[in-house]
Amino acid sequence: MLHRERIKPPSYIYPQDEWKIIEKRFYPRFLGQMETIFSLANGYLGIRGTPEEGAPVYQSGTYINAFYETWPIVYSEDAYGFARLGQTMVNVTDTSIIQLYVDDEPFYLPNAQIISFERVLDMQAGVLTREVLWETPSGKQVLIKSQRLVSFTYRHLAALAYEVTVLNAAAPVVLISEMSVPPVKQGDTGDPRKSHGLKEPALQPHQNYRNDLRLVLSHTTVNSGMALAVGADHSIATTCSYSHKNASSDNTAKVIFNVDAQPGAPITIHKYMAYHKSKTQPPEELCERAEWTLDRALQHGFDYLLAEQRNFLDRFWERSDIQVVLNPERAQRQTKEIQQWIRFNLFHLCQATARAENAGIPAKGLTGPGYEGHYFWDAEIYVLPFLTYTEPRIARNMLEFRYKMLDQARLRAVEVNQKGALFPWRTINGTEASAYYAAGTAQYHINADIVYALRKYMEVTGDHEFLFREGAEILVETARLWLDLGFYSANKNGAFCINGVTGPDEYNTVVNNNTFTNLMARENLWCAAQTVRRLKNEYPILYLELTDKTGLKDSEADEWQEAADRMFIPYDRQQGIHLQDDSFLDKEIWDFDNTPREKYPLLLHYHPLVIYRYRVVKQADVVLAMFLLGNEFTVDQKRQNFDYYDPLTTGDSSLSVGIQSIIAFEIGDYEKAVEYARYAVLMDLADIGGNVQDGCHIASMGATWMVLVNGFAGMRDYGGKISFRPQRLHGVQQVKFPLQVRGQRMEVDIRGENVTYTLKEGNDLTITHGNEEIRLTSDSPVAVRSII
Amino acid sequence: MLHRERIKPPSYIYPQDEWKIIEKRFYPRFLGQMETIFSLANGYLGIRGTPEEGAPVYQSGTYINAFYETWPIVYSEDAYGFARLGQTMVNVTDTSIIQLYVDDEPFYLPNAQIISFERVLDMQAGVLTREVLWETPSGKQVLIKSQRLVSFTYRHLAALAYEVTVLNAAAPVVLISEMSVPPVKQGDTGDPRKSHGLKEPALQPHQNYRNDLRLVLSHTTVNSGMALAVGADHSIATTCSYSHKNASSDNTAKVIFNVDAQPGAPITIHKYMAYHKSKTQPPEELCERAEWTLDRALQHGFDYLLAEQRNFLDRFWERSDIQVVLNPERAQRQTKEIQQWIRFNLFHLCQATARAENAGIPAKGLTGPGYEGHYFWDAEIYVLPFLTYTEPRIARNMLEFRYKMLDQARLRAVEVNQKGALFPWRTINGTEASAYYAAGTAQYHINADIVYALRKYMEVTGDHEFLFREGAEILVETARLWLDLGFYSANKNGAFCINGVTGPDEYNTVVNNNTFTNLMARENLWCAAQTVRRLKNEYPILYLELTDKTGLKDSEADEWQEAADRMFIPYDRQQGIHLQDDSFLDKEIWDFDNTPREKYPLLLHYHPLVIYRYRVVKQADVVLAMFLLGNEFTVDQKRQNFDYYDPLTTGDSSLSVGIQSIIAFEIGDYEKAVEYARYAVLMDLADIGGNVQDGCHIASMGATWMVLVNGFAGMRDYGGKISFRPQRLHGVQQVKFPLQVRGQRMEVDIRGENVTYTLKEGNDLTITHGNEEIRLTSDSPVAVRSII
Repeated sequence: MLHRERIKPPSYIYPQDEWKIIEKRFYPRFLGQMETIFSLANGYLGIRGTPEEGAPVYQSGTYINAFYETWPIVYSEDAYGFARLGQTMVNVTDTSIIQLYVDDEPFYLPNAQIISFERVLDMQAGVLTREVLWETPSGKQVLIKSQRLVSFTYRHLAALAYEVTVLNAAAPVVLISEMSVPPVKQGDTGDPRKSHGLKEPALQPHQNYRNDLRLVLSHTTVNSGMALAVGADHSIATTCSYSHKNASSDNTAKVIFNVDAQPGAPITIHKYMAYHKSKTQPPEELCERAEWTLDRALQHGFDYLLAEQRNFLDRFWERSDIQVVLNPERAQRQTKEIQQWIRFNLFHLCQATARAENAGIPAKGLTGPGYEGHYFWDAEIYVLPFLTYTEPRIARNMLEFRYKMLDQARLRAVEVNQKGALFPWRTINGTEASAYYAAGTAQYHINADIVYALRKYMEVTGDHEFLFREGAEILVETARLWLDLGFYSANKNGAFCINGVTGPDEYNTVVNNNTFTNLMARENLWCAAQTVRRLKNEYPILYLELTDKTGLKDSEADEWQEAADRMFIPYDRQQGIHLQDDSFLDKEIWDFDNTPREKYPLLLHYHPLVIYRYRVVKQADVVLAMFLLGNEFTVDQKRQNFDYYDPLTTGDSSLSVGIQSIIAFEIGDYEKAVEYARYAVLMDLADIGGNVQDGCHIASMGATWMVLVNGFAGMRDYGGKISFRPQRLHGVQQVKFPLQVRGQRMEVDIRGENVTYTLKEGNDLTITHGNEEIRLTSDSPVAVRSII
Repeated sequence: MLHRERIKPPSYIYPQDEWKIIEKRFYPRFLGQMETIFSLANGYLGIRGTPEEGAPVYQSGTYINAFYETWPIVYSEDAYGFARLGQTMVNVTDTSIIQLYVDDEPFYLPNAQIISFERVLDMQAGVLTREVLWETPSGKQVLIKSQRLVSFTYRHLAALAYEVTVLNAAAPVVLISEMSVPPVKQGDTGDPRKSHGLKEPALQPHQNYRNDLRLVLSHTTVNSGMALAVGADHSIATTCSYSHKNASSDNTAKVIFNVDAQPGAPITIHKYMAYHKSKTQPPEELCERAEWTLDRALQHGFDYLLAEQRNFLDRFWERSDIQVVLNPERAQRQTKEIQQWIRFNLFHLCQATARAENAGIPAKGLTGPGYEGHYFWDAEIYVLPFLTYTEPRIARNMLEFRYKMLDQARLRAVEVNQKGALFPWRTINGTEASAYYAAGTAQYHINADIVYALRKYMEVTGDHEFLFREGAEILVETARLWLDLGFYSANKNGAFCINGVTGPDEYNTVVNNNTFTNLMARENLWCAAQTVRRLKNEYPILYLELTDKTGLKDSEADEWQEAADRMFIPYDRQQGIHLQDDSFLDKEIWDFDNTPREKYPLLLHYHPLVIYRYRVVKQADVVLAMFLLGNEFTVDQKRQNFDYYDPLTTGDSSLSVGIQSIIAFEIGDYEKAVEYARYAVLMDLADIGGNVQDGCHIASMGATWMVLVNGFAGMRDYGGKISFRPQRLHGVQQVKFPLQVRGQRMEVDIRGENVTYTLKEGNDLTITHGNEEIRLTSDSPVAVRSII
């Protein structure tokens, strides 16, 4: 990351505002980026921030989490056990379009004479609004106000208000409210982070019908056998006289309003959009459901939806907001700015997860097609901590969702000649979709990542039931995989070694004894051994059930324990550092000095063989282990390792800087801590990766939360024990945030030298502040002095 | 290889015969295998051994060397620098078909009542003959005799004689002589050794015309822009009355002979087939060429072609034959058998190379679609030795062909971020076609292999001119790549290390310091340094030309020399073995005991990550280095290394056993030497790999020659000095073979304890026998005692 120049704050585009992202004029050159930034979503349904009129767009996108099409992965040179089934989140029927014609001239932003323009993403309201004053070539001034939401309360529902007023004249106004299946976007880019894309249309028309102002289109997917029904209904309010008609065909339906606009008289259309999908139900059934959803929405009306949206978000912010106040000598403007940046991340976390039920969290949420809408390890490692501490119910849903994949993971283990279960590196439907094993299947650490999240969830929430039932089964099968994957190496004094794996750092692939993997696997094995022993002793019935489901033998826990105890962790005594893997020091150091800035990310400019040959790190790997398993390292080791790996780390992955910041905070390297924190917080708003047009980096948004909570406030939770080491930073007056721990709700309020811990809900929670144990009881704040 | 059971000798299918491969009855279950075994080819044109009637077939195949179609290689997960252009040898217009109807009933082997059947590949005559006596359901006995050849003398020409006699009755006989474009064969098999295949027809019809008995079809390829013209002409001889007509369309043309066959009166059709292709000439031009070829063939007649074929092969066998006589206590039958096996290999080597002009030698020659008709390193390492010692002109052609690729190799180096030139791992047209870099692009040793062949060619033939002109340019660019690829590693005491490469053994990929690669690269660097220095001192004009073409600087030779001198060669003192690569001992030993035979080759049953994780070797790697650069190892090291690697080697590649045999001979492990020799010699005839239906293993055939010359006779040629250490083997009475060395022709005749070296052409050649120097002069044999 040190190889990049300092980033520009995004306020030159988005003015400072605590709660809003504001676009003050129409920026054609930021088209793609803004579509992502202004995306609305609820974890189930997402709509990119394209203009209401449907054009211009970089890529329009309407996504339903886990609604995907499959395709055969073809390898020009094939091999045994390669993943076979490509999965791509489908860009579904776009209902967001309302085309506007005045004097039969279309309103098209790039050509229109715009007198004023403002678009606002209101993160308290959960609404995207736009207000444009357009002067037509004949001098008619047209005021266009729109509001758009994807409902958190009704997850299948989106709604749109579109209001047109011709201010200074009468004019014929035509409004065409459309829904249509987007065309397939062609073209491979060679950028593996983008969507591979579907080469053929995924949606087969099933049914289309219309009834006055109501439109319904249903489709099925060609290969994955899923069904989709999308409905839209409208109401219109105006004093002007109007007529309307409708039309529909396989892939398009519309209502056309023809209005004799009178000067100053608003024409308001409310449009309600319902999305239902299913893997088991027929489309007819889904059409009915869509109609119910629309009936209800019409009955409630738009204002009611706005109010519900606000209510939902009030509760969200109460649980999740991180408030930051800068010192008075810093302008209030800067406080607003930093608050805006942080909330932008939290808001998109909410949008990605709130209603992601029976589904995972795609790498880009529902904001763009990047990474095909797949679920990766980053959901567990980067997003689940936020959920675990703010909305554990959703965290549990995510883990349940992984549990439902366990049978497929068992099959995948067989496919790659292993015992136990191997979770897919990337997937939507539970089968492995990674077509490049070196940075896919080889990342066996996905198993340990899931177990890590599971354990953390259990420790922080106290939800042992989940651990003892579903969790134990996951533990058994993942531990079996590790035991089978590694071996006791004579060449390493009989230590347990795991060869041929890829750690989080994808610039060093298929290596032996990746420290991160070995540490995480050890944790996995220990946790499995401990859990099944505890079950056996304390819950014999559950243990019996477990042995029945998994064929578990008594001896297995001992085998896991032994492998874990004898796990090899590569460490170089001479330099006093943990080696990222066995051969890390054998590599030539990348020539950073002679690598121009435009050659980053390296993966877009160098053959993998070149990158793999060098000592260069894409993203925190040992450093991530030092965060996740911080209690396995001494502070000195952390400092040594950080100082060693930091200059080698390009940060070409958005998953890196947040973690680097946290460890920099821990070892007291505040300059880097703050610099990296800034990168993490601004990853998307300042488009640091240069690819925000393909979607938000949801994991980096999760890391933003961690940077503040684990970095700045120094929170750790080893073994479920919550501890803090809050930092004092020049210029920061206050940082305040809530946390849920074992059903209780606490608040941390850091003000310079003083830190106050308050138990807001619940009545007994012991935490650690530095080395000091603090017992919190019902709503009596404990104030202590900062330790740093 | 020790994991396989003993192979059955193929004599249960093919009776023993010194010069012929004979099929005594029609074997439907060996259909695919026989098509390959009975293929005819001349290095330019190849026709699989399908029945004259066109059915039944496993896969018909007519191939022209370097006539290919291209297709974009698509990666579901793409990366920078991946190969982009797939290339596949096209299965072209099939002209071999003559359909036969008697009483309007088709002759179809599987259904026909066959009274007698014999098919013979005569390796002295270069002709495939068949004689079948068929009894029709109505009791008519039909004698069908055919002869087929692909001319060595006229490389564009094939010819066929088809003679039908109804022995015991009169009958209407219809003969349809066809030419047609074969349909595209669909279906991916997952076996990377098979052809990926073309998904769309490659041949676009261009022109079709006919003139009495002459047929011409021309085509162009869709993507690669090549042109093809195929013509056929006929003569008919019979005392029976007949009529004929013809027909043609885009992809088919035929002549139909309608004959009133009289009892005992033969009907003979001679068919001549001409194939012309070009990348630059239009198809019209090629059609003309095809017509000239046909005119000439008709004028000469079939017998003339037979005679020319025989002449050509007489010269071939004179240069190339290896005669073996077994001891009298062994039956003569066995001598015939072993002679047949050896000659089968030599004959197919001839067929793969004789007229491969301006082209390479595909892995399967022109006998099948396996490996897409691509050229690999095995041409240089396994086939060129045979050519260098028997027909150096062809060896030079091959090297010239590589030289013509140099500009593309320079571009490829840029694509993979390296200096100098990187030859393609697999290719037809010079661009890299390997879609799996771990067992493709990572095999940088291709560069050193080409240089090795170049140096050997130069040393053995004395052709310095080639070295100093084209060769020097190859040397400069390949040396530059090595210098750029490696580095001086502080972690290895400043030795020059080459990381992230794959050696010949494809079961250990992307490793650091592969011993084979490092040794071969060292040789390459040394040779380059030496050559440019010599040029500079002795041929300043040539040196100037070279610096002009390559921008060579004086300092470069020193840099190459230093890298070579300081090359790291991994060696384990404790075990006294060269390590295949840095991490070889860190791997777990493959569980051979619990791997059932049907799990070989491992690549078809285990995920690459699994294979790569273990200490298991697909094919000779260190052992190959011990043969190619035998003077870099002590005899003790050879023994130690062989004994260490042999039990780890599955021999899943056909390139392995021959080399293992040679080294086993050298270290005196005769049991293994003979066992592996047997595998090598019988690789295709006994279908040891189980995939001979996709084509012959031409490299293994080259290895067969090496097993006898380098293994049994112990010939080595370090620095161009020819030495022998002939073995005595129980049961072998005599082994005799010719060699060409620096324009002279010698013969080696080993008879038990006595060895005779004779200079047949030329008048002065010094060789070494054991440690004894022997000077050979014009045709005065020198007899010595065997040393072992």
